[in-house]
Amino acid sequence: MTSRSSAVLDVPQAPFYKAVGDEVAVFRAAAVGGLPLLLKGPTGCGKTRFVETMAAELGRDLITVAGHEDMTSADLVGRFLLKGGETVWVDGPLTRAVRSGAIFYLDEVVEARQDTTVVIHPLADHRRELPVDRLGVTLPAAPGFQLVISYNPGYQSVLKNLKESTRQRFVAIELGFPPPDIEREVIAHESGVDTETARALVAVGSAIRNLDNSPLREVSSTRMLILAGGLVSGGLDLRTAVRSAVVQALSDDADIVAALGELVDAVLPRP
Amino acid sequence: MTSRSSAVLDVPQAPFYKAVGDEVAVFRAAAVGGLPLLLKGPTGCGKTRFVETMAAELGRDLITVAGHEDMTSADLVGRFLLKGGETVWVDGPLTRAVRSGAIFYLDEVVEARQDTTVVIHPLADHRRELPVDRLGVTLPAAPGFQLVISYNPGYQSVLKNLKESTRQRFVAIELGFPPPDIEREVIAHESGVDTETARALVAVGSAIRNLDNSPLREVSSTRMLILAGGLVSGGLDLRTAVRSAVVQALSDDADIVAALGELVDAVLPRP
Amino acid sequence: MTSRSSAVLDVPQAPFYKAVGDEVAVFRAAAVGGLPLLLKGPTGCGKTRFVETMAAELGRDLITVAGHEDMTSADLVGRFLLKGGETVWVDGPLTRAVRSGAIFYLDEVVEARQDTTVVIHPLADHRRELPVDRLGVTLPAAPGFQLVISYNPGYQSVLKNLKESTRQRFVAIELGFPPPDIEREVIAHESGVDTETARALVAVGSAIRNLDNSPLREVSSTRMLILAGGLVSGGLDLRTAVRSAVVQALSDDADIVAALGELVDAVLPRP
Amino acid sequence: MTSRSSAVLDVPQAPFYKAVGDEVAVFRAAAVGGLPLLLKGPTGCGKTRFVETMAAELGRDLITVAGHEDMTSADLVGRFLLKGGETVWVDGPLTRAVRSGAIFYLDEVVEARQDTTVVIHPLADHRRELPVDRLGVTLPAAPGFQLVISYNPGYQSVLKNLKESTRQRFVAIELGFPPPDIEREVIAHESGVDTETARALVAVGSAIRNLDNSPLREVSSTRMLILAGGLVSGGLDLRTAVRSAVVQALSDDADIVAALGELVDAVLPRP
Amino acid sequence: MTSRSSAVLDVPQAPFYKAVGDEVAVFRAAAVGGLPLLLKGPTGCGKTRFVETMAAELGRDLITVAGHEDMTSADLVGRFLLKGGETVWVDGPLTRAVRSGAIFYLDEVVEARQDTTVVIHPLADHRRELPVDRLGVTLPAAPGFQLVISYNPGYQSVLKNLKESTRQRFVAIELGFPPPDIEREVIAHESGVDTETARALVAVGSAIRNLDNSPLREVSSTRMLILAGGLVSGGLDLRTAVRSAVVQALSDDADIVAALGELVDAVLPRP
Amino acid sequence: MTSRSSAVLDVPQAPFYKAVGDEVAVFRAAAVGGLPLLLKGPTGCGKTRFVETMAAELGRDLITVAGHEDMTSADLVGRFLLKGGETVWVDGPLTRAVRSGAIFYLDEVVEARQDTTVVIHPLADHRRELPVDRLGVTLPAAPGFQLVISYNPGYQSVLKNLKESTRQRFVAIELGFPPPDIEREVIAHESGVDTETARALVAVGSAIRNLDNSPLREVSSTRMLILAGGLVSGGLDLRTAVRSAVVQALSDDADIVAALGELVDAVLPRP
Repeated sequence: MTSRSSAVLDVPQAPFYKAVGDEVAVFRAAAVGGLPLLLKGPTGCGKTRFVETMAAELGRDLITVAGHEDMTSADLVGRFLLKGGETVWVDGPLTRAVRSGAIFYLDEVVEARQDTTVVIHPLADHRRELPVDRLGVTLPAAPGFQLVISYNPGYQSVLKNLKESTRQRFVAIELGFPPPDIEREVIAHESGVDTETARALVAVGSAIRNLDNSPLREVSSTRMLILAGGLVSGGLDLRTAVRSAVVQALSDDADIVAALGELVDAVLPRP
Repeated sequence: MTSRSSAVLDVPQAPFYKAVGDEVAVFRAAAVGGLPLLLKGPTGCGKTRFVETMAAELGRDLITVAGHEDMTSADLVGRFLLKGGETVWVDGPLTRAVRSGAIFYLDEVVEARQDTTVVIHPLADHRRELPVDRLGVTLPAAPGFQLVISYNPGYQSVLKNLKESTRQRFVAIELGFPPPDIEREVIAHESGVDTETARALVAVGSAIRNLDNSPLREVSSTRMLILAGGLVSGGLDLRTAVRSAVVQALSDDADIVAALGELVDAVLPRP
Repeated sequence: MTSRSSAVLDVPQAPFYKAVGDEVAVFRAAAVGGLPLLLKGPTGCGKTRFVETMAAELGRDLITVAGHEDMTSADLVGRFLLKGGETVWVDGPLTRAVRSGAIFYLDEVVEARQDTTVVIHPLADHRRELPVDRLGVTLPAAPGFQLVISYNPGYQSVLKNLKESTRQRFVAIELGFPPPDIEREVIAHESGVDTETARALVAVGSAIRNLDNSPLREVSSTRMLILAGGLVSGGLDLRTAVRSAVVQALSDDADIVAALGELVDAVLPRP
Repeated sequence: MTSRSSAVLDVPQAPFYKAVGDEVAVFRAAAVGGLPLLLKGPTGCGKTRFVETMAAELGRDLITVAGHEDMTSADLVGRFLLKGGETVWVDGPLTRAVRSGAIFYLDEVVEARQDTTVVIHPLADHRRELPVDRLGVTLPAAPGFQLVISYNPGYQSVLKNLKESTRQRFVAIELGFPPPDIEREVIAHESGVDTETARALVAVGSAIRNLDNSPLREVSSTRMLILAGGLVSGGLDLRTAVRSAVVQALSDDADIVAALGELVDAVLPRP
Repeated sequence: MTSRSSAVLDVPQAPFYKAVGDEVAVFRAAAVGGLPLLLKGPTGCGKTRFVETMAAELGRDLITVAGHEDMTSADLVGRFLLKGGETVWVDGPLTRAVRSGAIFYLDEVVEARQDTTVVIHPLADHRRELPVDRLGVTLPAAPGFQLVISYNPGYQSVLKNLKESTRQRFVAIELGFPPPDIEREVIAHESGVDTETARALVAVGSAIRNLDNSPLREVSSTRMLILAGGLVSGGLDLRTAVRSAVVQALSDDADIVAALGELVDAVLPRP
Repeated sequence: MTSRSSAVLDVPQAPFYKAVGDEVAVFRAAAVGGLPLLLKGPTGCGKTRFVETMAAELGRDLITVAGHEDMTSADLVGRFLLKGGETVWVDGPLTRAVRSGAIFYLDEVVEARQDTTVVIHPLADHRRELPVDRLGVTLPAAPGFQLVISYNPGYQSVLKNLKESTRQRFVAIELGFPPPDIEREVIAHESGVDTETARALVAVGSAIRNLDNSPLREVSSTRMLILAGGLVSGGLDLRTAVRSAVVQALSDDADIVAALGELVDAVLPRP
């Protein structure tokens, strides 16, 4: 739990990431021409970690912003603030990335309002520029600037989806949960548990993901399994850790909680 | 009624709390690694009191904020205010907790808008950092910082539920009403009534909670029983106290109020 | 019509109020421990007058605010205003009550938005404190502070009802229209009419309240009867006064107005 | 067309008004005790003119405000404005009426949002006071202050109606179109046409009002007939004047316009 | 294309307009008494041009504002702006027209919100005054002031229609497309094409307007035909001009575009 | 990827554009009289590039703004900003274009709110002027000013479509995807791939566009094919490039992705 990404650090330390498919190759090729990238995948599969890894590998700064319903384009581009009786322009995170040639990562893009997504269009096609209407200027993106956005296809709805005119400006990469051996290694590394505990946690995760006709809206993500490992490292027994970080987190329904509890009991080694 | 939690007090006095299950063990284990916590449970079962107790035991400051529909991320993170012709940044409660390493308790999280919940994401995963976009900085959480949120599963609805991408970042603890002996002790301590009166109030609470096919949206909570005890301590007879603090508080329907009144009459000792 | 309640008056004059049930006893008991109170009852039955009476009896200041859809928590807590180039904090009515130990009466609470009701939660449980987030302080309630809210159960709807988590923090008192002899006395005192006229007005009110299968959304309240009495004191004949203050106020439907008119003619003494 | 009402005129000139029922008597009686009044009636029947007349007769100033969807309570009560670096409070029209003892007429009250109507409650019951929360003061209404509101029952809908708790604070007066002889006199006086033309216009109005199974949402109001008279005074022939001010104003449907045209041709004298 | 209307020109040049019915007579008669006018008619039939013509004939200034969803009453009446540390009032276009006695033309009135339409009520009845609440004054309209509003009846919907209480304050004039000879003259004058081309364009317009069971939401307006003429004057062949300015403008449906194209081919002279 | 358009460059470099139909002729003819233009066509077919090309050919500056839901008319026209204690007016992009005689391109116009589209009306008819209400002036458009708007007919919906009164002020040009030989040339030029690769990409695009009963909301645009070419230029193999830039971008559905993958395998040359 030592990795961190930040626009204020010159050399972010590379986080721990294990490649699963060709996601690294596609990211590298897109980085050559500064092509915009769209990451698709379920919650907790490691999208943020992947972008942090690539930014470290490519030696670029990373500026991350999470989309939400009340985000406005000014939150990305910048706004005037009052200082000493004067209005002073303060760059938003997107403008800072455009000026400095950083990677700009807009997480959960479909949560944002349309003005937020439309403002990135001129940066996501051949123009590679950011019109800052309130300053009356158009900023060309510095070399190295790259746009990365992400979303979870499982959350798409009629009200919230990615506009086609936005979506088709992006090279798309699909990410999923890692295979057992890689997931085990990730859990052990991130939560500090031993290999055997990590193996047990992966077994729990797989059992829940493979449930037939599951009533769950989400399955047990790698992130949840890391949290369970963290509780074990904090001194809790494995069963209670899994019940708190996985079972209780997945459902509020007493019947489902009980059924998941039985499944977990069957999967975990007898204490 | 002397306990209080506050960010301005260095050493909050521990409130009265009686553990029921493994909630204390899970909280302690999560506190070791600063893992975020989600408390689930009905209204009035003691969630706030539990967090106050743990903060006192762990020797940490506690900053509490109640979620509501109109809360914005600026209410949590901070905003610029005008002072002497200059805009001066004023930290919000979340930022103060991040800087000082306090426990930050966001009560009734599903009442808040999504921008409020999204703003806590980077604090609720491996990053443990708070991007303050309007300052252009990213603050690492000080050691000791811990995020605690709560909600009442019974209030979940289509319009208001916890986003899966938020929910699965948290270790979950389920809380319920305490068993009779503990509840009796809590009521007596909090309202100042004698043991016999407390026993009678617990009997009223249990009778209402065990109603078959209850038309009530909520049952009689520990908090309601403490209120009834408080009226008795204020000089009111027990029957009128229960009618005011429990029966009239549970329903506006004349038939239901009458039926509950009869139930109470049957349960309470003859005067 | 000389009574008035105000935060700027040190000694408000007690209004005219006639107790009907145990509402005075419950209020007094709740006042001992500062327990929060919820008044339930139809429009015009005297809720406001009852609170004014109790405030006078208990010797406390009363600060009254009527809930409405556009009320924000800042309207209750306070806000920054610009004075001489500086932003100066101005306490809202709730904060003034908290600091001075007054009774704070939030009338028609279900009309307010949720942020308004959530802001009173920490004042309505064991904490008895008001977090003023924009100042970064938490104010303990001064001795004597008491929260009183009211609503009309008949107005409850899916869109507008009292949140359970708010409601069960309050001791509830149900109020209704007074019995004939008390209502007659109230009308005569408030409107200045003689006993016989007051008796006739009470007869009109009772006749309308006892209508079978009434198509009216509301019945004739004590307030309406006082208004009719006021018109008589202003020189109008009784029949026209009742038609204007009661019949025309209860309905716009020509048929219903005619039927009510006939009912009134039958009840009132021949001129 | 010389009458005008204004808060800046000390002695408004009485407009031309002809009483139809007991509306003048009720208004006078209500004025004795300052009881609040609700005027009900169709568009264009003379509600505004009636209030202007009574204000002149009673020798009081009249302040008129028309309700609309975007009106806020600040529009009525007042707000802070920035002057010379200071925020200066500026009274709204309601506050000016409260201080000066004027008649305050809120036209089309159901168009306003609820915060606008709730703000008048303490002025519409025994308190007769206006809480100005932003100043932290409660203003008693000066002698002579009277509240008058109006609405058109035909416009009532689920979304827009008068709250019961507002409505039953008011003495209600129902107004309709005047009988032929009075309407003729009004039209001649206001538009400057001769008696014969006024008689013809009244005949047109009556014919349209008496249509069986009329497809029109509104009927021909006194106001429309005055407008038609005004066009005749401006030099237009009577037929074209009626077609422009009445027929074309009542409908956009070609068939209805044709049918109304034939009706008008039959009613008007042959040229 | 040289005509223009403006509030800053003392003597606007009269645009080219050809009267079709009695619209000029009604406008002149209404202007005598300053009666408010409502223009009804389809898009592109010449409503704006008609008002410009009448303003020029009457020797009055014309101030035109187009209604839209986000227009507020402040956009019409005026607002305070900050200048040199002081708030300075700046008149809106309606207030300027009221003070100077100009014609105020509110185009597409149903697009505006209700506060915009309600603000004109006191100007549209016998009062002829504009209450400027934020200044605390009521301005009488200067002689010559006249209110003109317009809308397209075909656009009326449940959500957007003219309030009856607004509508019936206005004298109404219905406008349509001009007959062929007048339309030909208008097209030739405005677009600069020769008479034969104008005749061909009128033939195209008539053919489309006379389609049975037309699937089009709008028909070919005079404005569209002028645009087609403008393309011819710019060097384009007649067929391509009509396809661009009429056919492609009327529909996006491939089948309808093809059918209209065949109709146009049949109507236009062989090249 | 070297072209750029900007209002701050005096001589924008002409981008690469290949005419397909008569779009260049119509644009030239419209430019003679400054007639407003509406471009219709699917996402990614080259609308923006076309406008850039014509601006360069005509020697005019180009100012581009993308419509979005939260755009206000002030974003186009301008606003007051606070500088040195004074409010200073800052022209918006539309006002700058009007003053300087530039081409103003409003992309995706149906995304904008109606006040944005209504504000361009006086610029889109015979008036050719921009009323700047907040300044109280009306600006005539400088010679050379031309309005161009665009939208994608496929996105039309009940909630978002172009108002008829807006639409029929514009000469319309329909654009589609270019024929294979032109598309091949465009892809090779823009992405830097060789002719054979470009031919393969065009084959992929055509195969997807010609699918019968396609479940896709959009087809493979020229822009997508250029992105795939860009990945190849960045070092990725052709199959993976097409899967990332075309297949994964077109759908999130596993079955559709698999089916498109098979189609692509069949179309692409064996490696």
